[in-house]
Amino acid sequence: MADLMEATGLEKGGIYRHFPSKEAVAAEAFDYAWEEAFQERVRDLGSISGSVDRLKHLIANFVERRSSIPGGCPLLNTAVESDDGNPVLRERARQALGKWQGLLASVINEGVRQGEIRSGVDPRSLAMLVISTLEGALMISRLERNRDALVAARSHLDRYLDKEVRAGRSRTSRLQANQSERPHRP
Amino acid sequence: MADLMEATGLEKGGIYRHFPSKEAVAAEAFDYAWEEAFQERVRDLGSISGSVDRLKHLIANFVERRSSIPGGCPLLNTAVESDDGNPVLRERARQALGKWQGLLASVINEGVRQGEIRSGVDPRSLAMLVISTLEGALMISRLERNRDALVAARSHLDRYLDKEVRAGRSRTSRLQANQSERPHRP
Repeated sequence: MADLMEATGLEKGGIYRHFPSKEAVAAEAFDYAWEEAFQERVRDLGSISGSVDRLKHLIANFVERRSSIPGGCPLLNTAVESDDGNPVLRERARQALGKWQGLLASVINEGVRQGEIRSGVDPRSLAMLVISTLEGALMISRLERNRDALVAARSHLDRYLDKEVRAGRSRTSRLQANQSERPHRP
Repeated sequence: MADLMEATGLEKGGIYRHFPSKEAVAAEAFDYAWEEAFQERVRDLGSISGSVDRLKHLIANFVERRSSIPGGCPLLNTAVESDDGNPVLRERARQALGKWQGLLASVINEGVRQGEIRSGVDPRSLAMLVISTLEGALMISRLERNRDALVAARSHLDRYLDKEVRAGRSRTSRLQANQSERPHRP
């Protein structure tokens, strides 16, 4: 509340005239921060064609672009900080996760429908795996104050999408490509 | 501090007789919680032979075993919560991450030395990728109050270790195995 009073120049009473409770203030602040972060994550998505390339673009945005609001990912922060606290805030974080997972899953679904992504891929599981890997890497990168974990996560996911998710190349040509491949650095 | 006073039955003055500051109390509490969590993560590791199987065992412990101290992973919680706060606590979290990454990297290193793991694999990058994937999945699992993300992360990492990290099978037999493989669910 102290930060908020300083930022808005309002007294506590002034803030509570606009919001029913401290929890409601926090929920509104989350929505605002999440919207800003989400806009960066989907930036220029419309200009990319091909489902696998769209997924790679979403991953690149996460790794390369930061919201103008400092502090990392509002979803990660709020999920951890509301874990045994504010249930209103926790529900907002769940909705945010659902929205992001839904976007990724819809790109994957479209890829399966178009035959660009293997038919055995489960859209919601793959979406969850991408989010897990990126959010965990962001946590480590922020703790280490360097980008190594994010860069490693992106490289791993990009390679996985090409090798295990993307359809289209015949099995024979994939086997040939495997044969000429250099040793893998994860 | 209120929780701590209740748990210990000490007055605030009594607690400060043992610790120089609130930050020091938090750092000690972190060390204790992390030690408990770490013991669960390495449980029965000594009974497993083979580097890839040891990595899988460490992953399985993370997914299946929980410390007796509730609240999820102390490293994840502390990394997020000390991000713009307590520098003493943040340094403890960095050391904890370093210890865990070091353990994973030493298992991978031994595997490379023994020829069980491909020589192109970078131990510290792979260790970081495993930690990113697991910690991100734990965040999602706790937010969703179900294990789906953790189960998906384990299945992805196990498969990745077998297909891309494990050495030993000849390239020809791997190509044959690829050919008979069923469609992949991530």
